[in-house]
Amino acid sequence: MDSCRAPRPREVLVINVGDELLDGLRGNDHLVWLGEHLARRGLPVTRAVAVRDDAAAIAREVGAAWGAYDVIITTGGIGPTSDDRTREAVAAALGLGLVASPGAEDALRARFRILGRTVSEADLGQCRVPVGGETLPNPRGTAPGVWLARDGRALVMLPGPALELRPMFDEEVVPRLRQLGCACRGEAYVQVRTYGIGAAPLEELIRPVVPGGLTLTFGTHTGIVDARISSGGSGATAEDICEVARRVRDAVGEDFICTGHACLASIVIEQLRSLEKSVALAESCTGGLLADAFASVPGASRVFAGSAVCYSNDAKMNLLGVPEALLAQHGAVSAEAAAAMASGAAEKFGSDYALSVTGFAGPDGGTDVDPVGTVYLGYCSPSGVWSRRLSVVGDRVQVRRRAVNTALDWMRRKLNKYRVEDLIHGA
Amino acid sequence: MDSCRAPRPREVLVINVGDELLDGLRGNDHLVWLGEHLARRGLPVTRAVAVRDDAAAIAREVGAAWGAYDVIITTGGIGPTSDDRTREAVAAALGLGLVASPGAEDALRARFRILGRTVSEADLGQCRVPVGGETLPNPRGTAPGVWLARDGRALVMLPGPALELRPMFDEEVVPRLRQLGCACRGEAYVQVRTYGIGAAPLEELIRPVVPGGLTLTFGTHTGIVDARISSGGSGATAEDICEVARRVRDAVGEDFICTGHACLASIVIEQLRSLEKSVALAESCTGGLLADAFASVPGASRVFAGSAVCYSNDAKMNLLGVPEALLAQHGAVSAEAAAAMASGAAEKFGSDYALSVTGFAGPDGGTDVDPVGTVYLGYCSPSGVWSRRLSVVGDRVQVRRRAVNTALDWMRRKLNKYRVEDLIHGA
Repeated sequence: MDSCRAPRPREVLVINVGDELLDGLRGNDHLVWLGEHLARRGLPVTRAVAVRDDAAAIAREVGAAWGAYDVIITTGGIGPTSDDRTREAVAAALGLGLVASPGAEDALRARFRILGRTVSEADLGQCRVPVGGETLPNPRGTAPGVWLARDGRALVMLPGPALELRPMFDEEVVPRLRQLGCACRGEAYVQVRTYGIGAAPLEELIRPVVPGGLTLTFGTHTGIVDARISSGGSGATAEDICEVARRVRDAVGEDFICTGHACLASIVIEQLRSLEKSVALAESCTGGLLADAFASVPGASRVFAGSAVCYSNDAKMNLLGVPEALLAQHGAVSAEAAAAMASGAAEKFGSDYALSVTGFAGPDGGTDVDPVGTVYLGYCSPSGVWSRRLSVVGDRVQVRRRAVNTALDWMRRKLNKYRVEDLIHGA
Repeated sequence: MDSCRAPRPREVLVINVGDELLDGLRGNDHLVWLGEHLARRGLPVTRAVAVRDDAAAIAREVGAAWGAYDVIITTGGIGPTSDDRTREAVAAALGLGLVASPGAEDALRARFRILGRTVSEADLGQCRVPVGGETLPNPRGTAPGVWLARDGRALVMLPGPALELRPMFDEEVVPRLRQLGCACRGEAYVQVRTYGIGAAPLEELIRPVVPGGLTLTFGTHTGIVDARISSGGSGATAEDICEVARRVRDAVGEDFICTGHACLASIVIEQLRSLEKSVALAESCTGGLLADAFASVPGASRVFAGSAVCYSNDAKMNLLGVPEALLAQHGAVSAEAAAAMASGAAEKFGSDYALSVTGFAGPDGGTDVDPVGTVYLGYCSPSGVWSRRLSVVGDRVQVRRRAVNTALDWMRRKLNKYRVEDLIHGA
């Protein structure tokens, strides 16, 4: 962490170009990613606009914003096809001509030579920049990015594919923003991530250990509550803020997940890796979402054996060995079924640990005692088997997502608490 | 379908309020949902803006847009807490006072009586509307929506929770937009959904069967290509367009998925339901995503038995009965392993059909022959077992998503083609 000493808050605008964003065909993943990474550099996004693949619309947006924002970032529309209109529109809005960048043309020709493709005029069009701008190398694609700085302000054009946009932002844009005095060298804040406590009680709990001059903000998502501590105008050093974060961590206690941005699944995977133990899953209502949380962490395969997604009672019996009599007596959504699913998964996958989820995600199902939103979790470790009941208010998507996070957080806590017992019993 | 006879294209602006959208904490699900549903009513979104929970920012946005747009929709910021600022900001921007809606107050008091809660001043604040506006009932929450129409233009404020926003849009907003002459009675276009053909070849293929006056647009997402046919200014009736859609369907042939908006998993589930057959899955690199595609379809449990997510070779052997020698000889990412995983899943889950996926999603893994992006699919039916190789260009997320859709589409084709053989062999 390097505390950010920006003399004033910056105004940041993100312009995402693409019909698909407005027609409901795709979520705006670029804004989510840029939002997080700009905030981490001390440049939280002030405003974001999504516009169609339409030169006039793009030009209108840039024309109105240029001069009013410190940083403008566009995504998409700089490829070689006829619906790629960002480059021309931006140049027109700023009243600048487009000139070829010889370096970018050479790089494009070299890339096409390796690919065995011939270079067309449309391909070369991607190497033009507004006068005074420069191209940003794109070793992962054909369209270079564009950087244009004037009077301490910057306009950046990034390519549409995430695989090209993200490394270009990290490798080419952040160093230039830093040089311009806009972005921090390190992280702009220290984030303390928690689970199991609401934002309001968390604030009440930690406010006393955060000195007055520092800035404290909160973010919540699917049960996770993040507290972000930054120097504000206090002049506090990175070391000061890290010390405050340590005190916040102590105050939070068991609800503390991590300092930083790690997801719950990666925390659990890290715990298991340090123990050299494995985990398997048994899922009903989450239907693969819990498995996906583990599988999405690169390198998960070293500790993640797999998941038995068992919708039917037959599957619970055949794949996990849950006794038919247990299902008949207690039902498939019960503490007993959750525990049997977890121990069955540990046995069938031959894993040290297992986690299970069974519940009524809705819209149908549920009973008087266990209405829609009721979820039972099961946990099997070398030292025992536990189950736990959970009530979630929300729709099907929310119930499933919350069940996944609560299951992961529960395993995190159990691993913290019973690590030693597990090692003794599992030896 | 009711062909839309709007005299002119409408300008539609969506303003999404919330810090979490700009800080990278959450995707803008509201825009995705509203974008699709507005387009289906003949009101494609022209532009979308995301702003912070800041009264001045909201007011600036609404003030600049009022008069320039036919329809303005805001989401979020109309609840009872101090960071809910949309109502006040909009009223200020339009120079209108806020007045209490007695009907909404009565409804709120009645709701709180049932919940056993006392009504505070802040709660009642949710029942105020700009002068000339009306409240939109919200039986699923406390904050009523707001409708304000003037000179044929409309401004709508919707609540933040999806569970409240979506039915309010369908039940309260669409009828009012229709009355205002802005929205179609039925769908504004007929959508022909395809898989396996690119947008450009699809256009070349179907252009000859679409009469000149009609409007033809395309949308692509994860391998799916949608062709949307609408009357444009042609005066074509709903029946005319349906007839064109039938001809488009015939021209597309086996790549045709459906008319409308159904996802691939729901098509496969429908096919299985009509055959009264079940399916099980075996997944490696997709790690639960394929299971999630099935599980996300309401009512899936009638035909979806479950999925064995098997990351390790041990799991593939123990849960699916894949022979150790097969894995040793051909590797876990191979046509042979995919076929064995599929037949193992059918056997263990006791299902009629099974689908399997194994591949290198990256960033690590892969061989010279099968680099990252190589995926093998397996399919087991009563009449046989097949496997198929697939090469996907993209990052880990794209490889996994594309593998899921291609597996589903492959099963759809196989079910179409071998339905009768399957019934004979499965009898």
